[in-house]
Amino acid sequence: MTSADATFEQFLRSVIDRAADVRCPPLLANALHYAVFPGGARVRPTLCLAVAAATGNSDPVLAAAAAGAIELLHCASLVHDDLPCFDDARLRRGKPSVHIVFGERLAVLAGDALIVTAFESLALAAAQAAAPQRLAAVLGAVSGGVGAPLGICAGQAWECEPSVNVSLYHRAKTGALFVAATRAGALASGADPAPWVILGERIGESYQVADDIHDATATDASLGKPVGRDEALDRPSAVRELGLEGAVRRLQDLVEEGAQSIPECPGRERMQELVREQAKRFLPKNLARRAA
Amino acid sequence: MTSADATFEQFLRSVIDRAADVRCPPLLANALHYAVFPGGARVRPTLCLAVAAATGNSDPVLAAAAAGAIELLHCASLVHDDLPCFDDARLRRGKPSVHIVFGERLAVLAGDALIVTAFESLALAAAQAAAPQRLAAVLGAVSGGVGAPLGICAGQAWECEPSVNVSLYHRAKTGALFVAATRAGALASGADPAPWVILGERIGESYQVADDIHDATATDASLGKPVGRDEALDRPSAVRELGLEGAVRRLQDLVEEGAQSIPECPGRERMQELVREQAKRFLPKNLARRAA
Repeated sequence: MTSADATFEQFLRSVIDRAADVRCPPLLANALHYAVFPGGARVRPTLCLAVAAATGNSDPVLAAAAAGAIELLHCASLVHDDLPCFDDARLRRGKPSVHIVFGERLAVLAGDALIVTAFESLALAAAQAAAPQRLAAVLGAVSGGVGAPLGICAGQAWECEPSVNVSLYHRAKTGALFVAATRAGALASGADPAPWVILGERIGESYQVADDIHDATATDASLGKPVGRDEALDRPSAVRELGLEGAVRRLQDLVEEGAQSIPECPGRERMQELVREQAKRFLPKNLARRAA
Repeated sequence: MTSADATFEQFLRSVIDRAADVRCPPLLANALHYAVFPGGARVRPTLCLAVAAATGNSDPVLAAAAAGAIELLHCASLVHDDLPCFDDARLRRGKPSVHIVFGERLAVLAGDALIVTAFESLALAAAQAAAPQRLAAVLGAVSGGVGAPLGICAGQAWECEPSVNVSLYHRAKTGALFVAATRAGALASGADPAPWVILGERIGESYQVADDIHDATATDASLGKPVGRDEALDRPSAVRELGLEGAVRRLQDLVEEGAQSIPECPGRERMQELVREQAKRFLPKNLARRAA
């Protein structure tokens, strides 16, 4: 873990500690911690902070809050996605899902509370921010990535429709929160978010492809969650559409398109490096070696 | 319906129309409308707008957004509370609950999307607000009323604990959103929220007592939702604790304490009138006649 990663983890812990303080019902407090720690790859907040840094980092407090909010919203979506009425997934990040440990009611409530905490933490950050007037734009970018019509709630809801708009489905289910990450990073630094949208979109798409590859090739134990769900639930999947090799190639193309889209800025080359580096971790190890 | 009520309904509809636009999965869009319209008594937003008016109404756009956000968060909590894993309630506001009509998955997602939409609408309002610098305080007040440790998520979570802190339970489950309503109303107008906390607390408590009275005395059809749940689920209830007459007296005392707590302001008497008037509608009709 880099020192930047450690700083972010510490910040995230302070946000959860505040929500889960002594006045919080103890089981809910435990569920909140359990849902957020230890984390996954923290890809979205890393991306958000990288864009904030690349655009001048003129308000690190607001940038950290935006990154934290995005990660909490991601964690909330995982908790609700794993519920029996959705994916009915018993494993997440290598341990039993929140509803397996705490029951369905606390899983619903922990997800809800994480969503609220994400937005509350933006309000708290604004009170200490160098540029609190940026709060509205950051709040708009973050919330746009999770709600309706184009955020992850809508993406998940496409799975409940008799007929699916596949492009809107992927854009909403995975892409939206990555786009929110790049846009919020730029907005926290007072920069124009528009040039950063393609990066978010391409990383989001590549992440979705990587998820399809894992789902098709990994074992439950290696992935830390149930596999073979796309086939079992008849969901659209890049592997089902392009084959395994085609999906790996598609992932690499998407990452490269994302890297190339990064606008001129002082840290452009370092940022391209980071994107390619992170993306390598998307692939299962054996495939990453073959692809290299 | 007064013209102020009609204006608020129109505003609320514009917020939901935006979230449920043509790009939204159609069933989710329908579920969002279904969960919010037709509404209940809209007690919380009415209170929020009344406090904003009493404190000068210097930013009506932000006040309306705060009131709307509070109502959407209330609607979200009802959708999730009715889920099979919680109250398993088949009726709400006189019609089948969201999960009965749309299924459990869309009920979870509609609740999530309503929470996000509530916060997103604050961001959108700030872009047109007279005093956008008040956004952080309003966002903090609203989110504090719904999350953890002291908001309605925490209140609901107390029902999952083996032993309940009854005072924190009521304060969080019902009181917090009323306090958020009075505080946010004052903050939207740039006023000190502290003098308005007791009003929110007392109305919240009286509403909880009224809910207990309804639960103990009404029929499913008259109330529009299942009754006798407190007894059946062994939940704390003012009627179980004080008897029916004691509970009615307690409600009236609470309302009067709330009305007396309203700080000196140009509209103080009108506001006291409104509080007493609204509170009369809390009671079942036959009890209201007896109590008068």
